[in-house]
Amino acid sequence: MSSNITILLVIFALLCDVMASDPDPIQDYCIPNPKFGAIRTPLHTILPCKNSSEATTDDFIFSGMKVAGNFSDMGIAAISVNPTVFPGINTLGMSFVRADLKVGGINPPHFHPRATEISHVVKGSVYSGFVDSTNRVFARVIEQGEVMVFPRGLVHFQMNVGKKPATIFGSFNSQNPGSQRIPSAIFGSGINDELLEKAFGLSPKQIGTMRRRFDPKSMS
Amino acid sequence: MSSNITILLVIFALLCDVMASDPDPIQDYCIPNPKFGAIRTPLHTILPCKNSSEATTDDFIFSGMKVAGNFSDMGIAAISVNPTVFPGINTLGMSFVRADLKVGGINPPHFHPRATEISHVVKGSVYSGFVDSTNRVFARVIEQGEVMVFPRGLVHFQMNVGKKPATIFGSFNSQNPGSQRIPSAIFGSGINDELLEKAFGLSPKQIGTMRRRFDPKSMS
Amino acid sequence: MSSNITILLVIFALLCDVMASDPDPIQDYCIPNPKFGAIRTPLHTILPCKNSSEATTDDFIFSGMKVAGNFSDMGIAAISVNPTVFPGINTLGMSFVRADLKVGGINPPHFHPRATEISHVVKGSVYSGFVDSTNRVFARVIEQGEVMVFPRGLVHFQMNVGKKPATIFGSFNSQNPGSQRIPSAIFGSGINDELLEKAFGLSPKQIGTMRRRFDPKSMS
Amino acid sequence: MSSNITILLVIFALLCDVMASDPDPIQDYCIPNPKFGAIRTPLHTILPCKNSSEATTDDFIFSGMKVAGNFSDMGIAAISVNPTVFPGINTLGMSFVRADLKVGGINPPHFHPRATEISHVVKGSVYSGFVDSTNRVFARVIEQGEVMVFPRGLVHFQMNVGKKPATIFGSFNSQNPGSQRIPSAIFGSGINDELLEKAFGLSPKQIGTMRRRFDPKSMS
Amino acid sequence: MSSNITILLVIFALLCDVMASDPDPIQDYCIPNPKFGAIRTPLHTILPCKNSSEATTDDFIFSGMKVAGNFSDMGIAAISVNPTVFPGINTLGMSFVRADLKVGGINPPHFHPRATEISHVVKGSVYSGFVDSTNRVFARVIEQGEVMVFPRGLVHFQMNVGKKPATIFGSFNSQNPGSQRIPSAIFGSGINDELLEKAFGLSPKQIGTMRRRFDPKSMS
Amino acid sequence: MSSNITILLVIFALLCDVMASDPDPIQDYCIPNPKFGAIRTPLHTILPCKNSSEATTDDFIFSGMKVAGNFSDMGIAAISVNPTVFPGINTLGMSFVRADLKVGGINPPHFHPRATEISHVVKGSVYSGFVDSTNRVFARVIEQGEVMVFPRGLVHFQMNVGKKPATIFGSFNSQNPGSQRIPSAIFGSGINDELLEKAFGLSPKQIGTMRRRFDPKSMS
Repeated sequence: MSSNITILLVIFALLCDVMASDPDPIQDYCIPNPKFGAIRTPLHTILPCKNSSEATTDDFIFSGMKVAGNFSDMGIAAISVNPTVFPGINTLGMSFVRADLKVGGINPPHFHPRATEISHVVKGSVYSGFVDSTNRVFARVIEQGEVMVFPRGLVHFQMNVGKKPATIFGSFNSQNPGSQRIPSAIFGSGINDELLEKAFGLSPKQIGTMRRRFDPKSMS
Repeated sequence: MSSNITILLVIFALLCDVMASDPDPIQDYCIPNPKFGAIRTPLHTILPCKNSSEATTDDFIFSGMKVAGNFSDMGIAAISVNPTVFPGINTLGMSFVRADLKVGGINPPHFHPRATEISHVVKGSVYSGFVDSTNRVFARVIEQGEVMVFPRGLVHFQMNVGKKPATIFGSFNSQNPGSQRIPSAIFGSGINDELLEKAFGLSPKQIGTMRRRFDPKSMS
Repeated sequence: MSSNITILLVIFALLCDVMASDPDPIQDYCIPNPKFGAIRTPLHTILPCKNSSEATTDDFIFSGMKVAGNFSDMGIAAISVNPTVFPGINTLGMSFVRADLKVGGINPPHFHPRATEISHVVKGSVYSGFVDSTNRVFARVIEQGEVMVFPRGLVHFQMNVGKKPATIFGSFNSQNPGSQRIPSAIFGSGINDELLEKAFGLSPKQIGTMRRRFDPKSMS
Repeated sequence: MSSNITILLVIFALLCDVMASDPDPIQDYCIPNPKFGAIRTPLHTILPCKNSSEATTDDFIFSGMKVAGNFSDMGIAAISVNPTVFPGINTLGMSFVRADLKVGGINPPHFHPRATEISHVVKGSVYSGFVDSTNRVFARVIEQGEVMVFPRGLVHFQMNVGKKPATIFGSFNSQNPGSQRIPSAIFGSGINDELLEKAFGLSPKQIGTMRRRFDPKSMS
Repeated sequence: MSSNITILLVIFALLCDVMASDPDPIQDYCIPNPKFGAIRTPLHTILPCKNSSEATTDDFIFSGMKVAGNFSDMGIAAISVNPTVFPGINTLGMSFVRADLKVGGINPPHFHPRATEISHVVKGSVYSGFVDSTNRVFARVIEQGEVMVFPRGLVHFQMNVGKKPATIFGSFNSQNPGSQRIPSAIFGSGINDELLEKAFGLSPKQIGTMRRRFDPKSMS
Repeated sequence: MSSNITILLVIFALLCDVMASDPDPIQDYCIPNPKFGAIRTPLHTILPCKNSSEATTDDFIFSGMKVAGNFSDMGIAAISVNPTVFPGINTLGMSFVRADLKVGGINPPHFHPRATEISHVVKGSVYSGFVDSTNRVFARVIEQGEVMVFPRGLVHFQMNVGKKPATIFGSFNSQNPGSQRIPSAIFGSGINDELLEKAFGLSPKQIGTMRRRFDPKSMS
């Protein structure tokens, strides 16, 4: 019997990955079933889909971002909403994020490998921008009610330059846009020292300082 | 020379249509050029693209929805933001809308043939819902800060059931989602009377009443 | 053992949904296996895929629409052919329908959220048309051997205006185009009465009449 | 002025090619404009698009295949319907073909590089089949009212084995599926003789015979 | 218990097929798990996916084509690299092949139904070409360091015309491009004799000879 | 007449951008026409498409990377091959690059927003790797004949750690994958100083040093 369980775990692992694409949907929706959601394996937590007749209105409504999330050292609190926390968007090709910035808080340079972002300033004054493939920066302060677009896969960033907290609502055209935050992706991931020294023109000592700063073990 | 102009108009007409798809982009962005935007023809107003070195930060920022638009008889004011008014999103596969609803105002049943919608209630209490392919309705009142998803191509609707005006920010995973508003698409478009009578079980007189109500000539 | 069965049901539920997309295929074909097809669960009937070496010629041929299906009150008999009944088209991005119309029979206004339709009149005279996003109707009678296209996601309709039964063959560029029939989606789904009254300009009594007419419990 | 014309021709040539893709549409439809259709250049005949307000019902209806086309030596008459002859399907991701086969007539082995085909036998008895990537053939005789699917990019073929003419309606999930007919693509295209001898195990003389048989200059 | 196993096998069969598409990825990667890889069934060998935290560097590196593979009678040795042998490319939309050709060796006319090929001559002189939809051949000898492109779905071929062995590296924009080799697909698959005689203008005896030459039972 | 020219330039600018997508092709190929290629405008150099009957074999063969390109200060010489230099790949969804690395030369951390890369080491020993969305690095030295895959949109890097020059052939599943080189995108693009100080934990002086180092005006 235990080998059978093992095989099932394998299936679960596979299924999770199979759900990893943003093609045109071929059904109305596909809601992962929270009842079965507590199936924990050494590898994955699985959220199988509901039968459509068991779908409820609440499956299509997300109520978990009425207030700001927890703030990091950078002064940013981000609530990323993907199918894991909002079942109703599964397979529909969209997701979103609420980001709150303390006064002076930043959203460091990062990019989303799989989506364009529409960034709507719900409250506050936010220096916002992105860099294109020719290393040109497009950035300025935008105010409440304004919207900036960050084209797919390009590095972008934000900073609250107002005198009050800021709130941003960002939406994506992928259910899992992914994210690479440059400082930690570069200096906190373990890329070869010599290569980083040459790439950034930094001394071994400087690279060491950067490494310690972005060491994932020392970060929350 | 005039035949030459004619040919150019033909080209313009074609170009407009050629821009009508949401594939993966193969460049960072493509901003229609507002300088040349005033090229009006009998057929089209054309907005050719800028050279990327002439793109400016403002091309990627939309400031035209800080306040509500003009309200219709239904008590709704919608500002649809597509590449015509926000050049920076051209070819990036997304667009968005600001909708304000007076107390009791409605967004009548409609659907977007080419996009899923993420609907974020920025202010107010809004009865929101959609109907799936099996004619089940998923609807309830959602409050400020809540989000509802309307799967691609399914009929949905909204009504301000609160005591104050409501504001909604909707985003789409197409640069041109399209929209068919059911009452006017069915009764204001000129579909054969007999067919409508049979489809809805209405008398010729009742159909006539509906026709006059949704006659496009008598609507703003 | 029973918990094991439960887990399997979960897997089945998930698998069904995972098959819900129309991307480019990455294999020749994928035929659901009718041998295992009788696996009925409380949630789904599952048709797992055959090994390609077990595929047979008959898997790629559909013989179930040589004659008309059962007629509804509207005078239409539709046989929708999707991967559930025709395994061979699974993952190939197409499906089709045979619709027969009695004299005077109608196919009421409806749309397919996920496909364009090519409608080929095999027999008879059929008033056919669709409505575009600007509420213009494109409709006229077409005869045997003529073809009309209904663009993706737009409302369309048909009525047999000839003196003999009519037969139509419609093909779709999705294996599951979906369908929303306007009268029942709007009046038979349970959308809030007040919203419908405002949207259509009907009295509460009139809405009540429409509701009873399209009550799913009283329909076949 | 003549250099200006040259530039326009260049534009036309480019535009034709730009229309060469099957992505999701981002508008309702895009009808090439037959009024301007007579623009003939040394390179192309251009059919620019209509303004949507000038589209007519007839643009969406194809009436040119009520009767069979002209028969070739192989006993087949095919009418391929693409946006050039049926403007309304432009950008909608579908096209179709009517093929008539004389008694004993064949549709030689061929494949469509860019589409799956749904083949509906409207009349007659047709031996139909395809070959998969492992060189297995799936073929048998299908009768009036039956449908066979030919998966995208796989070699398929048909032969009228009945005692009466046969008519087939094939639909594709691309507006331009393309076609390579094996005998002429291999022996009528000018592939190096030595390579063909080795590939098929034929003598130089036999290859010469095949070449003459499928020489494009001697074929209609 | 044994029926349970049967059901699991069915699931495995389905899972394999579910992985058969090249949409945009919605995760960084999805590596089939070699630990569980030895799950052999009567139908399939299954390679479930790893948890991303268990992915290793070696999963993303392929070392199995440092030397040529085994040569066939045609003088070609091809190592096709797809997710089965190189787990790291699973879901990423690419795959590749190393082909070595003896002096005079050929890669017979074939096509890939689901991919364009970029063919890079790493060593040697190779006559290379393809045929387009109008039966035009594009072919000539290319040398070390040159690259030829074979558009998706079009018949192409290669022959080593140099005095030394040749090595080619081909890459594809699908994780499973598929392949149909014309001689064996046509003459070794069991297509009806009469149809082949008519299609190629060959006698029954000649067809018989071709059949025996490409009989899959007599080939390795 | 001059205003006419202006309009044409506008058209050219638009056309360039219209070619910016990687959907499924709907024709065999589309070769920009080098004859007209010398049309230089203040904005663009335009390469309109050839009529398919004018395509030549050479259009589909690239001969410009038989030897290494020019080396930068980092010890890398990259020849990026896209439709501008290799017309034949236009619209086919692939492109490629030859990169040569001096002993100790590096390809600094960068990513391609629109493509996965298959990286084939043709010669030498190359430390190669990428970072995933969780900041894990996957890297080691790979040798001649080995292949590494860099998933779409993820930061990757290379360094020649051998004792001889190295040559790499990289292929992409987009005709224009784009590239952002981290050091210059971050420090050479003009992102706000305060934001960079906070993001990287650097002093204003250190940021100033980095800026000067990656100032685009001082780089080749």
